[in-house]
Amino acid sequence: MTVSDPVSESSSAAPDRKVELGRDRPIRLDCGVEIGPITVAYQTYGRLNADKSNAILICHALTGDHYVADPHPITGKPGWWSELVGPGRLFDTDRYFLICSNVLGGCMGTTGPMEINPATGQPWGLGFPVITIGDMVQVQARLIDHLGIGQLFCVVGGSMGGMQVLEWAQSYPDRVFSAIPIAAAARHSAQNIAFHEVGRQAIVADPDWCDGNYLLEGKRPHRGLAVARMAAHITYLSEPALHQKFGRNLQNREAVAYGFDADFQVESYLRHQGSTFVDRFDANSYLYITRAMDYFDLAAENGGVLANAFRGTRTRFCVVSFTSDWLFPTAESRAVVHALNAVAANVSFVEIRSDKGHDAFLLDEPEFHATLTGFLNGAAAHRGLPGRGGASQ
Amino acid sequence: MTVSDPVSESSSAAPDRKVELGRDRPIRLDCGVEIGPITVAYQTYGRLNADKSNAILICHALTGDHYVADPHPITGKPGWWSELVGPGRLFDTDRYFLICSNVLGGCMGTTGPMEINPATGQPWGLGFPVITIGDMVQVQARLIDHLGIGQLFCVVGGSMGGMQVLEWAQSYPDRVFSAIPIAAAARHSAQNIAFHEVGRQAIVADPDWCDGNYLLEGKRPHRGLAVARMAAHITYLSEPALHQKFGRNLQNREAVAYGFDADFQVESYLRHQGSTFVDRFDANSYLYITRAMDYFDLAAENGGVLANAFRGTRTRFCVVSFTSDWLFPTAESRAVVHALNAVAANVSFVEIRSDKGHDAFLLDEPEFHATLTGFLNGAAAHRGLPGRGGASQ
Repeated sequence: MTVSDPVSESSSAAPDRKVELGRDRPIRLDCGVEIGPITVAYQTYGRLNADKSNAILICHALTGDHYVADPHPITGKPGWWSELVGPGRLFDTDRYFLICSNVLGGCMGTTGPMEINPATGQPWGLGFPVITIGDMVQVQARLIDHLGIGQLFCVVGGSMGGMQVLEWAQSYPDRVFSAIPIAAAARHSAQNIAFHEVGRQAIVADPDWCDGNYLLEGKRPHRGLAVARMAAHITYLSEPALHQKFGRNLQNREAVAYGFDADFQVESYLRHQGSTFVDRFDANSYLYITRAMDYFDLAAENGGVLANAFRGTRTRFCVVSFTSDWLFPTAESRAVVHALNAVAANVSFVEIRSDKGHDAFLLDEPEFHATLTGFLNGAAAHRGLPGRGGASQ
Repeated sequence: MTVSDPVSESSSAAPDRKVELGRDRPIRLDCGVEIGPITVAYQTYGRLNADKSNAILICHALTGDHYVADPHPITGKPGWWSELVGPGRLFDTDRYFLICSNVLGGCMGTTGPMEINPATGQPWGLGFPVITIGDMVQVQARLIDHLGIGQLFCVVGGSMGGMQVLEWAQSYPDRVFSAIPIAAAARHSAQNIAFHEVGRQAIVADPDWCDGNYLLEGKRPHRGLAVARMAAHITYLSEPALHQKFGRNLQNREAVAYGFDADFQVESYLRHQGSTFVDRFDANSYLYITRAMDYFDLAAENGGVLANAFRGTRTRFCVVSFTSDWLFPTAESRAVVHALNAVAANVSFVEIRSDKGHDAFLLDEPEFHATLTGFLNGAAAHRGLPGRGGASQ
């Protein structure tokens, strides 16, 4: 890995990486506040080639992190795309250099509300500035600078990760050779803002949230955060998936118990989703990151015309949606494709037939994986990268 | 109005009515518990005719009540179907005798967890037995007995009210001349159970819920109940309705405020829905009534074959769904229609084109209203009721 900037870098147990960015040149956020220095936690897989043309930036979703293909340090579970990363796999570590960083405002090592504010010596809490998808991407661009990479071969991500892909393509078109926004949208819908608001209200309704100062008070708003996660989790699945997985099956019993314990398997499952989430996620981070998604509206930033976001682009796009995704339905992806078509961009659009809902991008979906492999192979050939096994395609 | 049973009846400010039922013969609930006497609060409109053949039972939804066409005593708002009730209207008070009672487990006068348990002299709280849609209907049947009515001309209701309609048709087929289940289902889906569970968890997560004893403790779990309402409210609307009504419009400002106040109108709207709901609804009632809906599964009660619920029925059915209802989608109504077809029942099925989502049954939908009027007129003719203006049809 090449390090071009004179920045300090600490490395905990490999391959965890952290870098300090913005010490000499603070990062100006969309809200007008400047922050820096900040810490960015990231992970890499594979090796950067000599001309630095094989780097893929993977952008994680709302509650994801940079442990794409490593066991999660808290849960011990495999990384969220671990099946896709490795020699000969979709993200072929023999061919590509993969980078994923924890987003600004996150809670897995990158500067966010649970980290210490150097100015006060206390956790940022609600003193942390409100951030945007654009701010997250700006920080990622600083990381890419730090790694000495001019142009990324590809930027890819699902859900909020897909928003970041679109933001990259708008803000740094010359630095993005190809882009794969998956199960994403160019703006957060009213319904999605509403679901986020429910989650936020669940958190702030928890007295242990302590007006955002729970870390100072030695508390954690676990109950509120669990409710937020439960509500959100429903939106990640499809009704058919819930029906097939659980239906009205009862939990370890023959008949309903006429009570408020988890009678149905779907209740038990949801409670489990809520209770395990609070061990690995910070409530204030949840507030900030959901807010960043709410604010995302590429058309609004471009005079109300989404196509203006991509005018003149030479990036090759592959837009992917899933039929049963009702959180980021195909219509949202189609709007992106229409905008790209309007500026004669190079764009593929694939709607994958799946009953797995929004979370399909994290699950075993062979047609989806074949689509990404095909697109990456084609883009690699255009970029002049060697094919699988080292031969030029 | 004819009163046939020797029961005590008190009437608060007309036309509010309350009746005590089950003193001599307790009500055996599905959970096995017997309760009685209980109080049932109800409302009537129009006059019962001489042969008691013109009674329509209106069944209310989860958070509805018996104030169908009167101002709500707490909110002061018009009754939830007030536009449909009156002389010459859809529910023509010159022709029909309308009855609506607050459901068992409710919080507007009928016995429920916020009422006093005579055995203890304290609010029932979680000591209240867990109830079912069948229990609610059994209590309604007692009320109809009390009113001296053998057969109802029609049983009608939307959402949970529609579940009650289906339960009536199954349990008392000879007492239901016609039935109109609207935006309903013969069983609560896994996704809907999941949404209910989120609401319940939001309530029990509120420390002011006090393990269900908040009334004794002088507290109210307003924050948790408001979050439950907000989550549920999203499911009552459609994404297109939210988009048209609010889109990404900002709340009284030119640009986003980079904060966690209600920036978007949809956030402000949802918060308002939550905060006003807690003034008129009891948190424990919310637990009990959502649980009753979760448990509803007519097929399961009939050997797994929904058609068995209606075998031999002579009731005339009009099943209604709305295209944009994703909480009780048309597929659920279609399953009911298929079951009715399988037993050669007399059934009309109308899917109303509407972008208003599940709540369409409460809103101004002319095609929906025309459908109900046409069905009621036809059924009235078959029942031998005089037509509009008193002439026989």
